[in-house]
Amino acid sequence: MNTATLLISCPDQKGLSAAIANFLFTYNANIVHSDQHQDSTDDLFLMRVEWDLTDFTLDMASFAPAFQPIADRFSMKWTVALSAERPRVAIFVSKYDHCLVDLLHRHQSGELACDIPLVISNHEDCRAVTEFYGVPFHVIPVSKDNKAEAEAAQHALLQANHVDLIVLARYMQVLSHDFTAQWPQRVINIHHSFLPAFDGAKPYHRAFARGVKLIGATSHYVTEILDDGPIIEQDVQRISHREDVEDLVLKGRDLEKVVLSRAVKWHLENRVLVYANKTVIFA
Amino acid sequence: MNTATLLISCPDQKGLSAAIANFLFTYNANIVHSDQHQDSTDDLFLMRVEWDLTDFTLDMASFAPAFQPIADRFSMKWTVALSAERPRVAIFVSKYDHCLVDLLHRHQSGELACDIPLVISNHEDCRAVTEFYGVPFHVIPVSKDNKAEAEAAQHALLQANHVDLIVLARYMQVLSHDFTAQWPQRVINIHHSFLPAFDGAKPYHRAFARGVKLIGATSHYVTEILDDGPIIEQDVQRISHREDVEDLVLKGRDLEKVVLSRAVKWHLENRVLVYANKTVIFA
Amino acid sequence: MNTATLLISCPDQKGLSAAIANFLFTYNANIVHSDQHQDSTDDLFLMRVEWDLTDFTLDMASFAPAFQPIADRFSMKWTVALSAERPRVAIFVSKYDHCLVDLLHRHQSGELACDIPLVISNHEDCRAVTEFYGVPFHVIPVSKDNKAEAEAAQHALLQANHVDLIVLARYMQVLSHDFTAQWPQRVINIHHSFLPAFDGAKPYHRAFARGVKLIGATSHYVTEILDDGPIIEQDVQRISHREDVEDLVLKGRDLEKVVLSRAVKWHLENRVLVYANKTVIFA
Amino acid sequence: MNTATLLISCPDQKGLSAAIANFLFTYNANIVHSDQHQDSTDDLFLMRVEWDLTDFTLDMASFAPAFQPIADRFSMKWTVALSAERPRVAIFVSKYDHCLVDLLHRHQSGELACDIPLVISNHEDCRAVTEFYGVPFHVIPVSKDNKAEAEAAQHALLQANHVDLIVLARYMQVLSHDFTAQWPQRVINIHHSFLPAFDGAKPYHRAFARGVKLIGATSHYVTEILDDGPIIEQDVQRISHREDVEDLVLKGRDLEKVVLSRAVKWHLENRVLVYANKTVIFA
Repeated sequence: MNTATLLISCPDQKGLSAAIANFLFTYNANIVHSDQHQDSTDDLFLMRVEWDLTDFTLDMASFAPAFQPIADRFSMKWTVALSAERPRVAIFVSKYDHCLVDLLHRHQSGELACDIPLVISNHEDCRAVTEFYGVPFHVIPVSKDNKAEAEAAQHALLQANHVDLIVLARYMQVLSHDFTAQWPQRVINIHHSFLPAFDGAKPYHRAFARGVKLIGATSHYVTEILDDGPIIEQDVQRISHREDVEDLVLKGRDLEKVVLSRAVKWHLENRVLVYANKTVIFA
Repeated sequence: MNTATLLISCPDQKGLSAAIANFLFTYNANIVHSDQHQDSTDDLFLMRVEWDLTDFTLDMASFAPAFQPIADRFSMKWTVALSAERPRVAIFVSKYDHCLVDLLHRHQSGELACDIPLVISNHEDCRAVTEFYGVPFHVIPVSKDNKAEAEAAQHALLQANHVDLIVLARYMQVLSHDFTAQWPQRVINIHHSFLPAFDGAKPYHRAFARGVKLIGATSHYVTEILDDGPIIEQDVQRISHREDVEDLVLKGRDLEKVVLSRAVKWHLENRVLVYANKTVIFA
Repeated sequence: MNTATLLISCPDQKGLSAAIANFLFTYNANIVHSDQHQDSTDDLFLMRVEWDLTDFTLDMASFAPAFQPIADRFSMKWTVALSAERPRVAIFVSKYDHCLVDLLHRHQSGELACDIPLVISNHEDCRAVTEFYGVPFHVIPVSKDNKAEAEAAQHALLQANHVDLIVLARYMQVLSHDFTAQWPQRVINIHHSFLPAFDGAKPYHRAFARGVKLIGATSHYVTEILDDGPIIEQDVQRISHREDVEDLVLKGRDLEKVVLSRAVKWHLENRVLVYANKTVIFA
Repeated sequence: MNTATLLISCPDQKGLSAAIANFLFTYNANIVHSDQHQDSTDDLFLMRVEWDLTDFTLDMASFAPAFQPIADRFSMKWTVALSAERPRVAIFVSKYDHCLVDLLHRHQSGELACDIPLVISNHEDCRAVTEFYGVPFHVIPVSKDNKAEAEAAQHALLQANHVDLIVLARYMQVLSHDFTAQWPQRVINIHHSFLPAFDGAKPYHRAFARGVKLIGATSHYVTEILDDGPIIEQDVQRISHREDVEDLVLKGRDLEKVVLSRAVKWHLENRVLVYANKTVIFA
């Protein structure tokens, strides 16, 4: 189905729903999904609406000028995305390949509505499986001394490949503030704990030492503050005293894969709306 | 907050959202929650919208005649409910009191937006706790021979108390077709299995014998076919070989309480829309 | 069934299982449950074994002198408990009554193998329901100025009632170091977050502000450091953007009840073994 | 670590633990894991014990004659397995490749303690990914008319490759009774529902039609009765009205992968003990 998706956030006001619904009806939109949320705490209106473009009488090239007056009236932040324009995703990986393989296989199976023009790594390890899935693999080594140059090289590759979204699939380097500032809400990370518990290094070891009864994983947008960005998805798994740290690491992989892939899928389908360092997931 | 809630289901058509939103905006509704769903399988439009009545300029007594033309145009089934009019709930119970106590305590705590004018039982066991919570307790014994009379007596009590909803809180009698036919979508049962697995008698024993790794509970509207009505809520809990049938029964109680109370709460808040022997939960 | 339960922890060594099994077999024990765990990280052996006393030929009054030589040989820490000797539990509560009511009802239903000689509160609110369940209710007001005196009064009541275990059922006061030092591994608290996330005050508010996708509850033994003691049980529940702080508080109650009651039950059944600020749950 | 694992089931009797522990201690076994279960319903004793072979003074070739007298005394069914002897696993697959890819990747990552000498399919589709992981891929087409011949060809391949375990990774053919009779408790299937609900064909469609609130997956040993063998593992995932059948199929894949891989892993680590058409999982 050839659809458009509109994401809107603005101060809550009377008449918002009517204004949006009338606009879409004027151009004969066939709405296939619509979801809205009134956040009473922050007095916000948040909405996602997706419509079939088959009978839509407004050329999408003219959408912005046609919709902007309504957006202005209600002080909306808004974006519109077309299912026909597939986002371009770069995956960053180090040596652990489980999230990478999971994403590549889902992509091949048609689960992820995107193109993956490249994988970037600081190690050679994941080359074979990446190339098996037909994706170019680039190695850019990173050390304490060459971080700025490495990021410049990464950035050049991302630009050259017109990348829209970066997915850190257990990429073991911390991105610089400069880098993350250039990709706001466009870098998704998977952290191997139930944030905010065990942010930072070695979360499974610390979970084991603390004696928690569940381990977790968290996917979030990357911001300047480590492991602090808006959370997109989390999940947990029960553990027992019979499992040592190595068992937690293994069990955690299954969490990491599924939590990261859900976050990426929702982002690609324009189901994620960020506000107040939080997300609304219209799923 | 003094609100009205409209539940709508009808064939999906263009212009539905606009028509409803415009109607509400015409009378200056301040929408506090709105949720809609397009079921592409059955080509249905389903919606729940709740608005604050403070600034609403239409007298709710005039709502039906004002809204009916729109309803007719789109072949809607619809109901409207007012938060100011609390539904009246009768709880049926036998000897197991855990669901009853749970509901009475939640009601006292303000979790359930209803009045509970009576509890009906076929045994004396639950009288003390019911009366502790200030609710009249009626015993109507049921046997093979007096079923019709017992149901007539129950019915008379329900009528006299203007009951809107019956909650079967582990009531161990099967209601007759005549009885259930008089209360369509107004009797909520809790079944102690993950339906459709283990419908009928002794589900924990059968779950134990089958060796399942999770047990469940299911709340559903009662229909003429036993354990077959529209499912409102389900949940499960992991079990291990260390647990025997008695342990499953104990563990299951926690599932039964929470699953039944969610279903009752959602029904009372007009969050449940039934179609095609299924429910949409606007929660 | 009339049983004894032995809990053992010691450095792991060859021959441990044989020594314990032989000891029990010598006195004709009929083992009904046995569970052991080798912690390879700390090189520890941990065991729980429960046996039917019907045919046991050793008088339990003579158990300690008979077993001590084995315990000495393997440097064991050990305790033995008899199902015939029900622990005596004091529940501390403030104004929120959901955990209290849950525990009292479970106790009445036979789920908790203990006596509850008293409930202590700093408020009058929970008197009626406590007394309905036949448990004496004592009010000891607590303020900044009288904390030491209040704890002395509590302590006197606990002593007078021969209390073995204190359960903090949403008791909103922090116990002093002096107090907790007197009750090592004998005070169980319920904290309304997934520890170590959101330790301290107002966890639901902070969970809402952080935008987590799951909320949790944690039961743990109280130590001198707030919310830092050995975790006995945790569980989580998914939330959505449609739920505000008040909804989290409501939803959290169900977690708190079930997590606290599991911890208390396991403690009473001698299923909890503490080591290295962690617990092994032999359940 | 080089270990041996003993699995035992027999009528429960006094002295069992002592006899086994003494036997192992006699030969200086260093026990690394031991778990036992008394099933009071069937009056059975079930045990798994794993020990390090480093200091073990009994040649494992002599284990059976040495242990058999004890086994005879207590009427034990028992098996012993050595970590040094990796089971040989054949994977059967049709066109859906998600479980196959998951298993191959886990195997490559060292999660599964086995060799995979071959994959057998009735279609060509999964050849490339199987061969990428270095595993020979055999196509044996199956039709109504050639079923017996096809199974004979499969059987010959399994024999030639000394296969110990068959994993049906969404293999869409029903095996004949003759075939399954030859591989008792050695064929693991993944069924895409929460058994016993929705056994047989098209479980996701039927789950959707019934309006369940959770979907599930079940791994089990294959017996002569379809979807009726001993359950090894199950798990579920919450769904909402926003998901249609295709979404359930996608979501179910994640359940299928993780549930099947856990079952295979536990089988390979000798953690599964079958009795009374049920399993005990010593995990």
